[in-house]
Amino acid sequence: MRACVLGSGPFGTALANNLAVRCGRVWLWGRDADLIEHINRQHENRKYLPGISLLPNIRGTLSLPEALNEADIIVLAVPSHSLPAVMSSALPYLPANVPVVVTSKSFEDGKNFLISDLLKSCLPSEFHPCIDVLSGPSFAKELARRQPTFLVIAALREDVALRCQQLLQTDTLQLRVNMDIIGVQVGAALKNVISIAAGICDGLHLGPNMKAALITWGLEEIARLAVHLGADSHTVYGVSGIGDLILTSAGASSRSWQVGFELAKGCLIDDVLAKMGKEMIEGVKTARNVMVLAQREGVDMPICSQVFHVINGKDASLAMQELQRGVVRWQ
Amino acid sequence: MRACVLGSGPFGTALANNLAVRCGRVWLWGRDADLIEHINRQHENRKYLPGISLLPNIRGTLSLPEALNEADIIVLAVPSHSLPAVMSSALPYLPANVPVVVTSKSFEDGKNFLISDLLKSCLPSEFHPCIDVLSGPSFAKELARRQPTFLVIAALREDVALRCQQLLQTDTLQLRVNMDIIGVQVGAALKNVISIAAGICDGLHLGPNMKAALITWGLEEIARLAVHLGADSHTVYGVSGIGDLILTSAGASSRSWQVGFELAKGCLIDDVLAKMGKEMIEGVKTARNVMVLAQREGVDMPICSQVFHVINGKDASLAMQELQRGVVRWQ
Repeated sequence: MRACVLGSGPFGTALANNLAVRCGRVWLWGRDADLIEHINRQHENRKYLPGISLLPNIRGTLSLPEALNEADIIVLAVPSHSLPAVMSSALPYLPANVPVVVTSKSFEDGKNFLISDLLKSCLPSEFHPCIDVLSGPSFAKELARRQPTFLVIAALREDVALRCQQLLQTDTLQLRVNMDIIGVQVGAALKNVISIAAGICDGLHLGPNMKAALITWGLEEIARLAVHLGADSHTVYGVSGIGDLILTSAGASSRSWQVGFELAKGCLIDDVLAKMGKEMIEGVKTARNVMVLAQREGVDMPICSQVFHVINGKDASLAMQELQRGVVRWQ
Repeated sequence: MRACVLGSGPFGTALANNLAVRCGRVWLWGRDADLIEHINRQHENRKYLPGISLLPNIRGTLSLPEALNEADIIVLAVPSHSLPAVMSSALPYLPANVPVVVTSKSFEDGKNFLISDLLKSCLPSEFHPCIDVLSGPSFAKELARRQPTFLVIAALREDVALRCQQLLQTDTLQLRVNMDIIGVQVGAALKNVISIAAGICDGLHLGPNMKAALITWGLEEIARLAVHLGADSHTVYGVSGIGDLILTSAGASSRSWQVGFELAKGCLIDDVLAKMGKEMIEGVKTARNVMVLAQREGVDMPICSQVFHVINGKDASLAMQELQRGVVRWQ
C-alpha cells in the first residue's frame, strides 16, 4: 500500500508517521527543499517535530507526481488558504477512486464555508464521493510519537470512510466513522474560536470557574449552529466536538488559545500573529467567517461575536464582562 | 436577611463569603473551636482558605441553635458522610419553609443514592419541598475570592429555587434554576469518578489526546446513566455536567484528579487517602456506589468500572489499555 500526504507541517508529518505503520511507502510532499532533504536523510522533521523519529518508509518529496503516483490514500494537510492552489497543481496527477482526506479546520469565506465544500469546488465531481474529513482531539507532537489518539473520520460515502479507517488505524490511533460530515466540520472549526475565548479568559485571569463555564457555553453555541446547519447534536458532544474543544482550550499548547491570551493583554491581532510567525491562524479566520454565516442564518453566537470584536480591537475585558452579564443564555 | 452555612470547610466558607454580599448576617457553623474563633477574630479561614479576607458580617459559631435561628436560607456544606448526624442535631432548630441547599457531591449507598434523597431521609416530609441542590464548576478558592462563577440550583419546587437564586446571586456569582434535580446530581457525582480516570491518564503520561477523548467518553457515560435515571441529557451538557467535569479533570487543583494521579503510580488507595490527610474522598465513594447502581440498572459504565477496579488494586496501566482497546463505545 502507498500513502501520500500533501503538506509537511506538524500534522501532516504526524499522520505520515502513523500511515507508515500499515503502508509500505508513505510519500510526504512539501515545498521546503531543506526540510524535505533533512526528512529523507535524518528521518526527522526538524522544523515542526524536532526530536521525533519518523519511520524509515516515509519519503519526503518536492514532486507532486511522485507523491501522488499509485497512492491508495491521499491526505491533504495543508492550511486551508493553500488548498485551492495545491489542488490545482495536484489535479492532473490525482488517482481516481482513492480517499482524499482533508485535515484543515476552518470556516471559509462565502458559500463554501465547510472545508469539504471548498475541496469539492477544487475537484471535478467524480472525485467528490472520495472526500473525507479527519478530526478529533490531536496535538501533532503526541500523534507523531504515537501516543494514544482517537479521531473521527467523516465522509459522504461510508465505504470510503471505512477504507480510510483501515489504512489509518493502528494500535495507538483509533478512528470511528461518523457520517455527519457537517457536524464534524462545524465542531472542528468553531472549537478554535471558543479556544480564543478561553485564552482571553486566562489572559485576563478570570479564573478556572469562569473558564469552565465559558467552554460549556461555547459548546452550546457550537451545537446551536451545527444543528441549524443540519448536523446531529451528538456529533458535537463526541470526540470531534467537545473532545477537541477541551484539548484546544486547555492552554498554551494550542495556537488559538495563545492568540486569545495575547489579545487579552491588549495586543493588536497583527502583532500577535507576527509574534507567532504566522500570516493567519485558522481560528482567527473562522471567527470572521462564522459571524458572516451566523448573521445570514440568524443564529445567536455571543461568544464567537465577542471574539470577532476583540480580534478587531474591542477591549477584551469589556467583551468578557458582557458575556458574564448574561449575553449568553446558559444553563 | 440571615443566612446559615453548616460546615466551615472550603466550600461552605466560600459560599458564606458570597451570601454575605446580600445577607446582613451570615452564620458559619463548624466544630473546630480554634478555627471558628480565628474566623471571628481575623475574618479568615486560615485552615482551608488562608489569605482570603472574609466579609465582616460572617460570624462563626459552634452552636447549631444560634446558626439556624431565624435563617432565611440554610446551606449544608458538610461532607455527605456527616450529613445524617449533622441533620439529626440540627432538626430541632430547623426553621420551616426555608430553602435547604445541599452542596455535597457523591453517590450514596443503597436506595438513596442521590444526596437529595439522603437529605429527605433525614428530614420530616414537610421540609422536603425546601430541598435544593447547588452544583457547577467551582473551586472554593476562586469562589471565595469572588472570581466569576456560574452555578446551577436544582430543586423540587421552582419558587424555592428562585428564592435561593435571589439570596445567593451576586455580581460575580450567577445561578440558573434547573428543575432537573436528577441530572444535576448525577453529573455532579460522576464527574468526580471521571476525574479520577483523567488523573490516572495523566499519571501514566498517556498524553493530552487520550485524556481529551477519555473525558468525552466519560461525559457520554454520565449522560447514559443520567438519562436512564430520568434526567434530561441537556443538563449533563450544561455547566453542572460538562462544565464541572472540565474543571475537575484538568489537573492537580482537583482532589479526585490527585487520587487518580497517585493510583497511576501504583499506590494503594488507603495510602493515597492518608497522604492527602483524608478518610474518604467523594469520588472514591461514588466510584463504588455507582458500580452497584449501574449493575442493578443494567447500564454500561466502562470508565467508572475501571476506576472502581483500580481503586481496588487493579493495575492502572492495564485498566487504561482495556479502555483504549475499545471497551468504550465512543464516537
